[in-house]
Amino acid sequence: MRVINFNAGPAGLPQPALERAREELLDFQGTGMSIMEHSHRGKEYEAVHNEAISLLTELLGIPSTHQVLFLQGGASQQFAQVPMNFLTPETSADYLMTGVWSEKARDEAKYYGQSRIAATTINADKRYTRVPKQEEMQLDPAAAYVHMTSNNTIYGTQWHTFPEVGSVPLIADMSSDLLWKPIDVSKFAMIYAGAQKNVGPSGIVLVIIDKGFMAKGSTNIPKIFRYSTYAENNSLYNTPPTFSIYLCRNVLAWIKSVGGLPQLERWNREKGELLYGMIDRHADFFRAPVEKGSRSYMNGVFRLPTEALDETFVAEAKKAGMVGLKGYRSVGGIRVSMYNAVTVDNVKTLVAFMEQFVKKHG
Amino acid sequence: MRVINFNAGPAGLPQPALERAREELLDFQGTGMSIMEHSHRGKEYEAVHNEAISLLTELLGIPSTHQVLFLQGGASQQFAQVPMNFLTPETSADYLMTGVWSEKARDEAKYYGQSRIAATTINADKRYTRVPKQEEMQLDPAAAYVHMTSNNTIYGTQWHTFPEVGSVPLIADMSSDLLWKPIDVSKFAMIYAGAQKNVGPSGIVLVIIDKGFMAKGSTNIPKIFRYSTYAENNSLYNTPPTFSIYLCRNVLAWIKSVGGLPQLERWNREKGELLYGMIDRHADFFRAPVEKGSRSYMNGVFRLPTEALDETFVAEAKKAGMVGLKGYRSVGGIRVSMYNAVTVDNVKTLVAFMEQFVKKHG
Ligand SMILES: Cc1ncc(COP(=O)(O)O)c(C=O)c1O
Ligand SMILES: Cc1ncc(COP(=O)(O)O)c(C=O)c1O
Ligand SMILES: [Mg+2]
Ligand SMILES: [Mg+2]
Ligand SMILES: [Mg+2]
Ligand SMILES: [Mg+2]
Repeated sequence: MRVINFNAGPAGLPQPALERAREELLDFQGTGMSIMEHSHRGKEYEAVHNEAISLLTELLGIPSTHQVLFLQGGASQQFAQVPMNFLTPETSADYLMTGVWSEKARDEAKYYGQSRIAATTINADKRYTRVPKQEEMQLDPAAAYVHMTSNNTIYGTQWHTFPEVGSVPLIADMSSDLLWKPIDVSKFAMIYAGAQKNVGPSGIVLVIIDKGFMAKGSTNIPKIFRYSTYAENNSLYNTPPTFSIYLCRNVLAWIKSVGGLPQLERWNREKGELLYGMIDRHADFFRAPVEKGSRSYMNGVFRLPTEALDETFVAEAKKAGMVGLKGYRSVGGIRVSMYNAVTVDNVKTLVAFMEQFVKKHG
Repeated sequence: MRVINFNAGPAGLPQPALERAREELLDFQGTGMSIMEHSHRGKEYEAVHNEAISLLTELLGIPSTHQVLFLQGGASQQFAQVPMNFLTPETSADYLMTGVWSEKARDEAKYYGQSRIAATTINADKRYTRVPKQEEMQLDPAAAYVHMTSNNTIYGTQWHTFPEVGSVPLIADMSSDLLWKPIDVSKFAMIYAGAQKNVGPSGIVLVIIDKGFMAKGSTNIPKIFRYSTYAENNSLYNTPPTFSIYLCRNVLAWIKSVGGLPQLERWNREKGELLYGMIDRHADFFRAPVEKGSRSYMNGVFRLPTEALDETFVAEAKKAGMVGLKGYRSVGGIRVSMYNAVTVDNVKTLVAFMEQFVKKHG
């Protein structure tokens, strides 16, 4: 029996994607071996690799100005790899600070060049409960790039309008909301995302990069760290994480089969409305810190009147077959991660549980 | 039906390790989700993670002076990460050149500091057919480290006696022979290995590092690239490739179950003797370039009298249920990779096929 999985990442994956993997785990398409036992230079694996790229391209409508790359090291490695490629001691990058992950991203920039905080929504409690408004941003027109976190997994905030940054290249960490709905990829010089929320298992990072921007990257860094190395070799310069890419392929094929990003957006909005509707009907009990305009459709956070009730909530939900609801270590409370593999029905089950929970403990 | 898989990497995995993964792919130990859907901070995953570390520690007899780390980015990222941590513009590292991978490793060092060739066995054809002898090495006693490739996957050579480097830290890329037999880990300041030959799928790198040596690493580099970051966080600083580590755990458990490294060494030596015995009995036909004392027990390379025969060999072997025998792109010929998952019987089947092949085409 599968449980309802609200984990923040690694997160639940669509069951059909996993079933497909199980089915052919020891014998991929009659080849007599697992896809993970195939050479990354063989035609069987290359077909999977290229299908993952073309599905992502199709689903997101990635323009031909941009290229899809597969990297490793988690989104955290991108925090360092972005400035390594695109920042020098003589240049400065702008960072839009909206949470823990923006902070960690900026921390890694200092080893390569200068950085500025172009906007921050940190409050007196050192927490973040919203994303900045356009007029709050103090953008440097000469910046090497602007870095943003599109969805703040820990604080449960999300950008619903992307910032206007003029001609400065915009780079977004979309680890926790890539593929939640259609977006205009052409606005971004680079998008990166650890796969383990919406796309696949941990151990694989998706990069979508503007080729012109990429060409400006440093060549005075090791080959393995240059985006151009991945681009020139179709992400096969060295051995990619083949099985992880295969699993992403399965998830992307599932997304296409259910109707693509327009359908996922409908489901994700419905899930968000269900959860936030319940929160707002019992706002004294489910205390949601995030400003309404910045609420995340991927991670809904709230706290109950006491920490003891938070714990009871998590424990009773678990008994009811729902796991992964504990808030992030440093934040506490409850976090409901509702990535693409979480169904509308799953959220209905949770919301019904919440209704009962208020009746019992409210 | 599973084929006999002589792939050089990603390579075949022990069937019991894969069957175990298939069995619990959608429901890990009754938790109602796949291990890849578990949080990397949850007790279920952490038990797997720690078991992988303790199995590796036990199998290799890793002393308490050393620590096991899990990294990403392939062995190729280690080529850069080693000098990033341990080389400065003021220091120099020694490289022992025994093949393509040694060359690539040294190429990445120049971005961080100086490097010297302390020995090379490159020949007039720009190939390598042996590893250097101790007396051929011109070691710099002030070197930051000595880097070596313990097994040369492409050229089919292997070190059978590790070099004596005095008090200089010795770093070995053991990507293609870690776990082939017991070794004395204490001789090495650091060992690294991409998992995809002897240990697991691609997308995970095992590092075994001396803690005192690690402590000397630069702190003027991004946190995500410091070995000490992985060490301080038990390789859970950011999200590790959880499913890949789980698969390594399954392979390590299988190694233990069959008798550990002494048993693997017996099998690997028997496999090597079978293959090289056949080669030597038909030395005019199976032309093996490697000097006998440097022959690899992991990758056996030879060429047939003509390239057309090489192709026929690969094609007929495939019909007989054996794949992965084509030599590396730049080298050609035949390569028989006989990692731990390849059984003695598999090699007997190949050798019988070779016998028939000489009769028919010799
Ligand atoms: C928005 C965001 N960025 C970056 C990270 C770090 O990702 P990783 O653990 O893959 O390095 C996370 C992890 O949860 C995240 O949510
Ligand atoms: C000895 C050795 N080192 C390094 C590498 C590169 O490994 P990766 O592709 O994981 O970067 C290989 C790949 O086959 C290898 O055999
Ligand atoms: Mg995480
Ligand atoms: Mg955050
Ligand atoms: Mg390889
Ligand atoms: Mg080699």
